[in-house]
Amino acid sequence: MQRVADLDTPVMVVDLDVLEGNIKRLQDDIDSLGLASRPHIKTHKIPNIGQMQLKAGATGITCQKLGEAEVFADAGFEDILVPYNIVGPSKLERLTRLARRAHLTVAVDSEVTARGVAEASQEAGTNVDLLVEVDSGGHRAGVQTAQEAQTLARKIADFPGVTFGGFMCYPSRPPMGDLFAEARDLLQRDGVPVTTVSGGGTGAQRVSKETGCTEHRSGTYIYNDLSVLRSGKCTIDQCAMSVLVTVVSTSCPGYSTIDGGSKTFTSDALRRDDSNGYVRECPDVYLERMNEEHGVLSLSKLPAGAPRPQVGEKLHVVPNHACGTTNLHDVVYGYRRRGGEEVVEVEWPIPARGKIR
Amino acid sequence: MQRVADLDTPVMVVDLDVLEGNIKRLQDDIDSLGLASRPHIKTHKIPNIGQMQLKAGATGITCQKLGEAEVFADAGFEDILVPYNIVGPSKLERLTRLARRAHLTVAVDSEVTARGVAEASQEAGTNVDLLVEVDSGGHRAGVQTAQEAQTLARKIADFPGVTFGGFMCYPSRPPMGDLFAEARDLLQRDGVPVTTVSGGGTGAQRVSKETGCTEHRSGTYIYNDLSVLRSGKCTIDQCAMSVLVTVVSTSCPGYSTIDGGSKTFTSDALRRDDSNGYVRECPDVYLERMNEEHGVLSLSKLPAGAPRPQVGEKLHVVPNHACGTTNLHDVVYGYRRRGGEEVVEVEWPIPARGKIR
Repeated sequence: MQRVADLDTPVMVVDLDVLEGNIKRLQDDIDSLGLASRPHIKTHKIPNIGQMQLKAGATGITCQKLGEAEVFADAGFEDILVPYNIVGPSKLERLTRLARRAHLTVAVDSEVTARGVAEASQEAGTNVDLLVEVDSGGHRAGVQTAQEAQTLARKIADFPGVTFGGFMCYPSRPPMGDLFAEARDLLQRDGVPVTTVSGGGTGAQRVSKETGCTEHRSGTYIYNDLSVLRSGKCTIDQCAMSVLVTVVSTSCPGYSTIDGGSKTFTSDALRRDDSNGYVRECPDVYLERMNEEHGVLSLSKLPAGAPRPQVGEKLHVVPNHACGTTNLHDVVYGYRRRGGEEVVEVEWPIPARGKIR
Repeated sequence: MQRVADLDTPVMVVDLDVLEGNIKRLQDDIDSLGLASRPHIKTHKIPNIGQMQLKAGATGITCQKLGEAEVFADAGFEDILVPYNIVGPSKLERLTRLARRAHLTVAVDSEVTARGVAEASQEAGTNVDLLVEVDSGGHRAGVQTAQEAQTLARKIADFPGVTFGGFMCYPSRPPMGDLFAEARDLLQRDGVPVTTVSGGGTGAQRVSKETGCTEHRSGTYIYNDLSVLRSGKCTIDQCAMSVLVTVVSTSCPGYSTIDGGSKTFTSDALRRDDSNGYVRECPDVYLERMNEEHGVLSLSKLPAGAPRPQVGEKLHVVPNHACGTTNLHDVVYGYRRRGGEEVVEVEWPIPARGKIR
């Protein structure tokens, strides 16, 4: 029997009961809305967990980069959405190789990108479904108006090697309802059917439903994190993932220092308040600062007389950003609480970690 | 001939001429100060580059975590400083295994940590040199006063399995001069010799000299980055490392979006101003925001009429934080500028990437 408490630190650990609860709760909710569920694997990057999501009822998965899609196709996943503009000969060649062994859908937001996918796919004798990405306010990608969506969709519908599927946005936001409806109407008049509208964002499945989406992409829900907690979309008990760390120094007055910093948790701020991490064993202590290998726990909110974390003590820290944290770790241990102990049940490598291309 | 311009993106690339210049300039400066140079490998995490540093005159290397030291010991490095409190049975066992094949020095800041190393080392029949870490103002680790340094040093001098070597701080700061002098005096009266005082920080070698250090640890100087640039300690032409990215979207007014974000550059802010990255091809454009896989270049400072980066265009981006960026990449390409082209000369894996334990 391997105990979490005996693992060398810092190390990422996942409570499997909480993980399974998160999968079921999301799938039930999406089912009740009548949407398809297409979870985003960026949060866990582990095919075994993706299989759990499919088994629960997901219709396919979402991968942000081709390198992630390649890992999951290798593991047998057959229906993959890449909601990302694929640009350049090397990636287009990889895309068509993937399209030979999986049903691939890709989002594009420009004619030049759509044409690149179409030409590569035609030359390779494959077919790729294309969605038009629409900007829902993030201003990082996506066409701006229903008219732009219509124009690009009509071009895609005429390209060989690709099939126009519909629209995609991230995250789902209420104003998208009118835009999607208008773009649908315009394309209906053009005789171009819209079969898929893909919305996304942890906790945003109801917004996806209300804005006319047919499917919803959710990523962080699988683990949850402080960012989701602060947005009110989970409880601390629904945070499945934490990083086990060890206190290595108490020499600086007012602080206890742990052996994990930005190289363990990322510096991703997201919805940060004054803390970069929630310490399960001692919630009054907060992760005030990080360097690469040091995390500095402030004791300033610790009630008078309460014990401070001591050198050698191990703590579970729930990070700000689960997805970024996953990307820094090569392995995660799955455990269950049994009789007051956290017992390791599985050790998963994270094969889609670091797939930036 | 492989050209940098043909590499798939995002990808980390290093100008070897600039890298070699950075190594020589730092070593010359440290030599002129009469200090020993013990570069920190955390910035590059590549044994080949460590060998270049030794060949230039470094007396040994610095690794922040045992996992990094193991990689470098495997590559034949024989003199390694780990300026980090080593805590817990698993790490102590790894430490003594390392001590059998390399000259190991470790920094500690508490009796409990020093005793742990001493007992493990004695049991293994090895010897480890111990430095007392002194807090130079970072408040993450280190004893606070000369008296505390004396007390811990005397205990270490009495422990079996370890040898007291002296002091270590990060970064070197002017007030440390008085503290180190006082601690030396106290220990001289005790008959405990101080042979090593290790200072650190890119650009801080003169402070190390002025505060009585015998050696200097410098990490980021090897690549340099925007943080070092903003501190006035390098020029943009001395930034050896950048990440080659591709523009993937121009659909959002006022922005061009690249295929690298926080998963490529980290969110490490350090001395950030309004930009997270310097775009070599177009310095008027700045990296305003990042998500995991998107970097959003703002065009707001682009002079009227100047061309904006277009979809498919490749750009070199110098990041805020070189060390964090290295930790996100599995490989780096070394190149030289030859006849207007960047020609790839070497592909280095980054074996000490992700060594958080």
